[in-house]
Amino acid sequence: MSSPSPASAPSPILEYVLTFVCEDRPGIVHAVTGAIIEVGGNITESRQFESGSTHRFYMRLQLTTSASTEEITTALAPVVENFGIEHHLDVVGRPVRTLILGSKATHCVNDLLFQVEAGHLPIEVPLILANHPTLEPLSTFHGIGFEHHQTRGDGAKEAFEDRVRQVIDEYDIELVVLARYMQILSPELCAELAGRCINIHHSFLPGFKGANPYRQAHARGVKQIGATAHFVTSDLDEGPIIEQDVIRVDHTRSPQELMAIGQDAEVRTLRQAVTWFAQSRVLLDGTRTIIFR
Amino acid sequence: MSSPSPASAPSPILEYVLTFVCEDRPGIVHAVTGAIIEVGGNITESRQFESGSTHRFYMRLQLTTSASTEEITTALAPVVENFGIEHHLDVVGRPVRTLILGSKATHCVNDLLFQVEAGHLPIEVPLILANHPTLEPLSTFHGIGFEHHQTRGDGAKEAFEDRVRQVIDEYDIELVVLARYMQILSPELCAELAGRCINIHHSFLPGFKGANPYRQAHARGVKQIGATAHFVTSDLDEGPIIEQDVIRVDHTRSPQELMAIGQDAEVRTLRQAVTWFAQSRVLLDGTRTIIFR
Amino acid sequence: MSSPSPASAPSPILEYVLTFVCEDRPGIVHAVTGAIIEVGGNITESRQFESGSTHRFYMRLQLTTSASTEEITTALAPVVENFGIEHHLDVVGRPVRTLILGSKATHCVNDLLFQVEAGHLPIEVPLILANHPTLEPLSTFHGIGFEHHQTRGDGAKEAFEDRVRQVIDEYDIELVVLARYMQILSPELCAELAGRCINIHHSFLPGFKGANPYRQAHARGVKQIGATAHFVTSDLDEGPIIEQDVIRVDHTRSPQELMAIGQDAEVRTLRQAVTWFAQSRVLLDGTRTIIFR
Amino acid sequence: MSSPSPASAPSPILEYVLTFVCEDRPGIVHAVTGAIIEVGGNITESRQFESGSTHRFYMRLQLTTSASTEEITTALAPVVENFGIEHHLDVVGRPVRTLILGSKATHCVNDLLFQVEAGHLPIEVPLILANHPTLEPLSTFHGIGFEHHQTRGDGAKEAFEDRVRQVIDEYDIELVVLARYMQILSPELCAELAGRCINIHHSFLPGFKGANPYRQAHARGVKQIGATAHFVTSDLDEGPIIEQDVIRVDHTRSPQELMAIGQDAEVRTLRQAVTWFAQSRVLLDGTRTIIFR
Repeated sequence: MSSPSPASAPSPILEYVLTFVCEDRPGIVHAVTGAIIEVGGNITESRQFESGSTHRFYMRLQLTTSASTEEITTALAPVVENFGIEHHLDVVGRPVRTLILGSKATHCVNDLLFQVEAGHLPIEVPLILANHPTLEPLSTFHGIGFEHHQTRGDGAKEAFEDRVRQVIDEYDIELVVLARYMQILSPELCAELAGRCINIHHSFLPGFKGANPYRQAHARGVKQIGATAHFVTSDLDEGPIIEQDVIRVDHTRSPQELMAIGQDAEVRTLRQAVTWFAQSRVLLDGTRTIIFR
Repeated sequence: MSSPSPASAPSPILEYVLTFVCEDRPGIVHAVTGAIIEVGGNITESRQFESGSTHRFYMRLQLTTSASTEEITTALAPVVENFGIEHHLDVVGRPVRTLILGSKATHCVNDLLFQVEAGHLPIEVPLILANHPTLEPLSTFHGIGFEHHQTRGDGAKEAFEDRVRQVIDEYDIELVVLARYMQILSPELCAELAGRCINIHHSFLPGFKGANPYRQAHARGVKQIGATAHFVTSDLDEGPIIEQDVIRVDHTRSPQELMAIGQDAEVRTLRQAVTWFAQSRVLLDGTRTIIFR
Repeated sequence: MSSPSPASAPSPILEYVLTFVCEDRPGIVHAVTGAIIEVGGNITESRQFESGSTHRFYMRLQLTTSASTEEITTALAPVVENFGIEHHLDVVGRPVRTLILGSKATHCVNDLLFQVEAGHLPIEVPLILANHPTLEPLSTFHGIGFEHHQTRGDGAKEAFEDRVRQVIDEYDIELVVLARYMQILSPELCAELAGRCINIHHSFLPGFKGANPYRQAHARGVKQIGATAHFVTSDLDEGPIIEQDVIRVDHTRSPQELMAIGQDAEVRTLRQAVTWFAQSRVLLDGTRTIIFR
Repeated sequence: MSSPSPASAPSPILEYVLTFVCEDRPGIVHAVTGAIIEVGGNITESRQFESGSTHRFYMRLQLTTSASTEEITTALAPVVENFGIEHHLDVVGRPVRTLILGSKATHCVNDLLFQVEAGHLPIEVPLILANHPTLEPLSTFHGIGFEHHQTRGDGAKEAFEDRVRQVIDEYDIELVVLARYMQILSPELCAELAGRCINIHHSFLPGFKGANPYRQAHARGVKQIGATAHFVTSDLDEGPIIEQDVIRVDHTRSPQELMAIGQDAEVRTLRQAVTWFAQSRVLLDGTRTIIFR
């Protein structure tokens, strides 16, 4: 039996978030909550889901305890072993180390950095990489490093992606956000970043895949335009959807106005997806996502 | 010059709706409002739109006057001639003669008939034609004629479409509503009904065209499901969109539940499209619609 | 220890919903899931909430098992005793016995009965009581008993409320729905029906309490109108809110049109509240509700 | 007859917006469009409304012409005289000179300034006045003047309001925006700024007037929280509503989280109200607004 908090001074009570996934079978919740009792934990929030498509069991818990991450992990070890659980344990509110890739558009980056400063978005952004210099003043204003790299020309894209890998290593990046980066990542980088790279697509997927979705939306005369935040996969615009939102429009809107209106949908959709990811609320279930709001 | 209301007893004041379209050039509104002044009309509502795609001018007016339809038409004649105007003049609130084609699903028909009875939807439905008997009790409850016809088998579809044509003739039908009719109309009938046949598609077009959209939506893990009301053309699911709406869903929903939830979007979307059509608020601008809300 | 399913023929596997509330303390989930393991149960869905206002712990579980209600109850008994739990156990999808009180308006009743028939709303309605005869044809069409009673005049309201009590007894009613009943229940009846009587109020509470909310909304020039479904308490329009929804409007709408538009918000809001109640998703936390969607 | 564009070099074609209001009587539109024809104008957009409450007629037109503002005004003069019209003529897209009053909160100001820079919001902001220094870095980043003034203490509020009046004079300010200014303006200043001072209130008025609306909303357990942009009047929180929006919430949200979520509603609602004002789309009709979207 583990004996948490052996020090003479009482350990502070922390709130942890635990997510896990395993093959579905009876007794999982009982076993996991047993381990939590061992470390004196009190569950404050929980959601679970049993996937009909993949027959896997997903759970997200928040718990308060004075035990440390190591003590909780030790208590969970036999359960993890027994049920073949993949799990992730973190302190609630710990900022997730995030790399932003951008281009010319500023709206998504402006919002993300503003939300971080306002204390609404638990990420920290050490660096922004972009293939245009536009984002530099905004980065500087928020005290964030900025690098501009060419992605055109022989080997430029490969060099850029190598710099991305370096940054991920150096800063121990947990999440890459394509904030209207507008470039296609190589299949290799897509594979390396599976499940931890979020893109914002400026349409309500699967409608209007590909380039110029606002022009397509105008030509088709749609009555709502939307945005989709999804995990990046090598299959363009087909990655698992995390969040979608729409805004009503009418026949009077030009393609340019649709774009301006749509940016608001992009901002809200990307912010929501990044927030949920940073709160460990997004789990992958094959080609779909589970969102434990 | 016309001299309206010459009778000794004063004519009642009626509210008319006038829609018109012509090539865009200066002076149209002044000319039309001049004709309205001639018949003592007072404009109570107006919207106009100059299409950037087709360079045509669209307008919808409501006016009150004691003049008759004939008197207004006479006063408008020189303007219509001069500007090459196509126009439509009607009394506000006159029920639009509507034929409903249905199948097994009852939700859209139930709502349309309920809205008619509640006085919220200015249509009258003399008859419902369906390829299943399911809608009969509902039709009977609302005092509406019902006919069940087979559409399978040699010549059955052609016979059904001939019956549709007969009914349109006999009842002077102005609008045909495919209330989840689930059959493809022949290209000939689509052409005959151009601009006066509304279909409800159970997805947020152009996403998930074709059959089983809720199953497709589930497989793709979308976060909102929607419905689209559009004019029917021979190009399946590609007709001009009149209205679209969405409802938020999450990963817990099965395809069956998505369908149940989506029916609410279908009901609202179709009701809205039919209401706008019946109020002469829907004008065709090439492959797009203008909605003068 | 209970020994479920001792019969030679295997019992069918059923899905149950279990909700419970108790004072918050560690170990509750572990203890309850232990009892569920005893009866061979597999948890398929769960939500929990620890209320900051009342310091109580709320949980809703769905589980599949071949054990009977009695066997589950027996297994839970020591936990219930130990933690001072109030709980409710039911079979998922069992129709909740519901009494509808109505008046002249038909829109909410039409929708509820339609949803029941479509299989989307797990309630059964043996009887409708109303203070106007308007709802009789609709009740008859759906094969539901209908009684019209006066509520004006000496003792009429008391007699009506006594009939309500009788019906609740006779049909073992679990939920009373005021589907635009438009009468104030006596404080005594409100108290008797605490937590099982849902009203639909035609405004976005707490805005526009009292009578004629659409007229108030028009005078105030609001840009969205809404509806609120809440539990009935003797404190008029102040009961715990279950669901709220809004619809966008503009300056062109008359009070009559606001009413017509608002009816759509009422229909959706009441339907949602009744659905959640019937699925045991609504728990009371003092003056607020917890909705385990 | 006016003779527009007499110069040898052709004048450029400009787009103007014309709004006007007068007592409702027949012939207004015909007379105004006649004046527009005189200056070679082509109407590109129009909306009108006849108020049932005040029996006044409101119209907004956009027109293209090579005539100057003076030429258009001259052509309109007889019509203005004849119908007793109050009107406003402007060039479409001309930035409206706007003074922002702020306090500690940065979210609304950040969004407004970002939208201006992105070219989506046709205002120019020469100066921000605030009773806290918090907004200074943001103002500086956007190259906008900033002044911090105390509003507490003897005569401080009067001095601040005098500075507001000075700035309005000096910069010929057309719109004052209270971007979470959190102070009550004196009745005198309210009167002086009637119809050109917009406040964002952090609730869905008329619900939760007064202080701490998010705390009130939490206590009441509402299911949607909202924001209201309205013209400032001396009757606190009762000024004519310009725009309202809501966001869905649930029982898990603390008052602090409701506030964070609500800020998004505030941002969108204020941005929309300011945009419409700057586009001359907001007209006052007694205690209500007409929004010509």
